[in-house]
Amino acid sequence: MSPAGLLSVLCVLRVKFENAGAGLTGLGPERHVAAMGREKPSFMERAIAEAGAAGRRGEVPVGAVVVDGATGNVLAAAGNRTGDLSDPTAHAEMVVIREAAAGLGAPRLDGCDLYVTLEPCAMCAAAIGFARVRRLYFGAYDAKGGGIEHGARIFDQPTCHHKPDVFGGIEETRCGALLKGFFADRR
Amino acid sequence: MSPAGLLSVLCVLRVKFENAGAGLTGLGPERHVAAMGREKPSFMERAIAEAGAAGRRGEVPVGAVVVDGATGNVLAAAGNRTGDLSDPTAHAEMVVIREAAAGLGAPRLDGCDLYVTLEPCAMCAAAIGFARVRRLYFGAYDAKGGGIEHGARIFDQPTCHHKPDVFGGIEETRCGALLKGFFADRR
Repeated sequence: MSPAGLLSVLCVLRVKFENAGAGLTGLGPERHVAAMGREKPSFMERAIAEAGAAGRRGEVPVGAVVVDGATGNVLAAAGNRTGDLSDPTAHAEMVVIREAAAGLGAPRLDGCDLYVTLEPCAMCAAAIGFARVRRLYFGAYDAKGGGIEHGARIFDQPTCHHKPDVFGGIEETRCGALLKGFFADRR
Repeated sequence: MSPAGLLSVLCVLRVKFENAGAGLTGLGPERHVAAMGREKPSFMERAIAEAGAAGRRGEVPVGAVVVDGATGNVLAAAGNRTGDLSDPTAHAEMVVIREAAAGLGAPRLDGCDLYVTLEPCAMCAAAIGFARVRRLYFGAYDAKGGGIEHGARIFDQPTCHHKPDVFGGIEETRCGALLKGFFADRR
């Protein structure tokens, strides 16, 4: 590879890394670039947009996106809908997992990645395991309600049959600010 | 109360206790009798029937029922539907929680009880907590996949905001036999 070519590749990787945020570790996003053969769309941006839309509807502002890891196609994108649907299980992750699986016509999302603005709770983490999600990218950590790095730590349980690759802290500040603003407005 | 009246009450309580099964503890079913003012229908029987129907459809034979604790009305009854709906989250508990909440027009099942033939997994246990289910009655214990007495022990986590009264082991042998038969047929 020529020096110019190498520089080009490094620039793409740097942009990807910055886009992914300070908390990112591992090779996930870089592998995406190779797998997709083009600039990776910012799926976390899409999740953040869904979170914002949820907040404007009066729902807790969390958003999620399911992406086909091989093609980069968005299979589902949604925000929280617990109030809208009168459904205590309608967290953003559950909504997109159900929609993506229905679209694929199978109860598994093999090879798919999930982007969500907040650390999933135990319910969503277990669902992510059942769905066989390949990689999980999440934004803000959730010490009070999270089920991955906190609380039940679902993927560390011996009863967990599938653990995705997990990348936390992506756009953590922006994702968390949405939630802080939402709850501050309600106090 | 006359001796005959007291005997009558005791007989009702004994029938209730036997109906509920050997693993039952606490005062849940007796309170039901008082609240409903009549013989309690066997909701676990209904859950077992739903489990059997699920097995005949090729789904893992687990069934669940949501009951309004004040009236004794069944708000939802279903078996597993993960294959049928192409939905990895469509465990029997999730299906009935969603249906009952939609029927009530609220994301909470305050004052409702859930009967299920198998110890709920971590996903369902967390959903039961979010739904604010009053009492949970389950059949067979699940050392491999359960999330209440095993694995993540969701209701024992400091991040759990609502814990129902839990009664396990109700009709445990029959509930477990359905599952054993189902998996034995597939070996």
